[in-house]
Amino acid sequence: MFEDVIFSYNEEKAKLILEKLVGKNPLFICTIATTHTAKIPGISAAGKNPELTDYTPAADVEYLYYDKCLSISGVPVTPEGIPTPALITASALKLAQIPLLVVNAGASVKPKSPYIEVGGKPGGNIRDGRGVENPAELYQNAKILGEHLSKIADYLIIGESVPGGTTTALGVMLALGIDARDKISSSLPANPHGLKRNVVEEGMKKIGAEIGEFRNDPLKAVEHFGDPMMPVFLGIVSKASERVPVLLAGGTQMAAIIALLYFTERYLPDSIVIATTRWIVEDRSSDLRSIIAEISEVPIVAVNLNFGSSVYKGLNAYELGYVKEGVGAGGASLAAILKSKGKIRASDIVREVERRYKLLTGS
Amino acid sequence: MFEDVIFSYNEEKAKLILEKLVGKNPLFICTIATTHTAKIPGISAAGKNPELTDYTPAADVEYLYYDKCLSISGVPVTPEGIPTPALITASALKLAQIPLLVVNAGASVKPKSPYIEVGGKPGGNIRDGRGVENPAELYQNAKILGEHLSKIADYLIIGESVPGGTTTALGVMLALGIDARDKISSSLPANPHGLKRNVVEEGMKKIGAEIGEFRNDPLKAVEHFGDPMMPVFLGIVSKASERVPVLLAGGTQMAAIIALLYFTERYLPDSIVIATTRWIVEDRSSDLRSIIAEISEVPIVAVNLNFGSSVYKGLNAYELGYVKEGVGAGGASLAAILKSKGKIRASDIVREVERRYKLLTGS
Repeated sequence: MFEDVIFSYNEEKAKLILEKLVGKNPLFICTIATTHTAKIPGISAAGKNPELTDYTPAADVEYLYYDKCLSISGVPVTPEGIPTPALITASALKLAQIPLLVVNAGASVKPKSPYIEVGGKPGGNIRDGRGVENPAELYQNAKILGEHLSKIADYLIIGESVPGGTTTALGVMLALGIDARDKISSSLPANPHGLKRNVVEEGMKKIGAEIGEFRNDPLKAVEHFGDPMMPVFLGIVSKASERVPVLLAGGTQMAAIIALLYFTERYLPDSIVIATTRWIVEDRSSDLRSIIAEISEVPIVAVNLNFGSSVYKGLNAYELGYVKEGVGAGGASLAAILKSKGKIRASDIVREVERRYKLLTGS
Repeated sequence: MFEDVIFSYNEEKAKLILEKLVGKNPLFICTIATTHTAKIPGISAAGKNPELTDYTPAADVEYLYYDKCLSISGVPVTPEGIPTPALITASALKLAQIPLLVVNAGASVKPKSPYIEVGGKPGGNIRDGRGVENPAELYQNAKILGEHLSKIADYLIIGESVPGGTTTALGVMLALGIDARDKISSSLPANPHGLKRNVVEEGMKKIGAEIGEFRNDPLKAVEHFGDPMMPVFLGIVSKASERVPVLLAGGTQMAAIIALLYFTERYLPDSIVIATTRWIVEDRSSDLRSIIAEISEVPIVAVNLNFGSSVYKGLNAYELGYVKEGVGAGGASLAAILKSKGKIRASDIVREVERRYKLLTGS
């Protein structure tokens, strides 16, 4: 059952939770947003160039629904041409027949597919101390949504597509007093820690805030240094986890969510798990585990996806540190394994990704 | 189990389907839209005055989520002050803890609550032959949504809040060649059949169309004489019913959906049921049963809700022919009975409606 699962943190608790989910019916939710932060040169590789990051979330979820993007031709790629992790997510969801809902937390380009609105607008530039205009409204709407979604599935997997999302994650964590500097991951092998730190520090200077400034007001941390995905993700997880287990599908951005959850509610729900990819937990340029261990005992598990023996260079690049995670790729893969009672293996997902990559590139 | 259920048409098949749903977990979907047709004086009573019909769908679903409206003060009422059937729907959903999702098919006022976007815009005025701008896009998006929603519930109940919706229902049925003149219901005791017919006939003259003109092109019928709810409802039902039973929650507007479904697919799914209120099936100014019998064997069932002995005049009015149905009130009531295995009775729903009415009016 768990041959392809790496237990990275709090294995015992992870197993207790995951064992109850075997064969159950999950719902996968992808939360999307764009920000002006992502357009700072060098911050995001989720698009051929910074301006194109506006299209990436819409294109990602269109791909999940339709197996092709409608808002762009091809699929989202990094400047080097490495394809979006939506290929992994789509493979996992399709193989295991897992239903999908998209929540638009604030994307400037709206998907040409169904999506749930919660009153979101695109995020600002945290270099100016402007993250999210209306975090409280988003949080409230997301809570009622989370309550209802938790009634229609045995458990939820929530992922995100937010270009520049690790920089806003750093911003929020620093605003909450969690020292995540040099620990957040990147979609590039050469993790631009210095640039991200500078962006956040400039923003703090701009509004006269210090590290830990908003420890007692987490939504203020989001307002100044976060992105619109965060209050939405937070609201859904906080209400849904009262009723069902929730897999937080992502890398170091999930640490920001856990931190917000903790500082909002002053406790952490008992049945949440961070589910990600091997590329995240083995990454030497970031340290999800140490950030999480600083604030909680929320388990971290990763699916052992490996593109090392793929014939496609665009996929091999994942082994070199490109992309790593996104669009809930790791969590969707875990859910496919769980729903199929282990019949779907990580290698099946890799094979399906290769099939899709071949279709896309015609190679 | 079925003490409070009136089997109005095809009882045998209705029982076969409903018996399988006892104790199962449904999802209630409310599809909303506004149209310019509704603003023709005398057409809609879903608002204090025609211009206010723009607020009614948003206010209805806000009430379902939050037990209060955010876009208006109070709740939607008819010009005589009779309250929205959302009170019934909310009572049924809350008593039975049934989850809710809202689909915005094209509402000019967007709800201040979560809702699913499918690319809809408000409907035109069918008196000018303009119903829906983009029915094919709505239909496609709704199909993919229906596919995914059908995976997360044992069955679906789909209702609507569309002021003026019986007039567009008449328009579409005439365009499809189904003679529903004088058979469609109204939210007023004095059913304005003549006015509705005139509106449709004027629209037909305007575009040079005849009765039955679009029998072979149902989406054209919607484009000229329908409302945005229709292609969305159609898409969800057509895909969802491939996998799970679907209760079409509404009155004579559901006949238009059945007609569209039939002329689109040239067959009708086996596990759909029209679920409505007693006020519809006992209405002498309309005839749902005869329209349905003309085109199909889709069962009609009604919940025996009775406000006759209520101390509140605003509720008694339902017994005089006001409102009758809407916001999926009958279907939600049926689902509450089914989910609770008959523990929730129609009288429990009536009592809860009275409690809510008292809260609203302070009387």
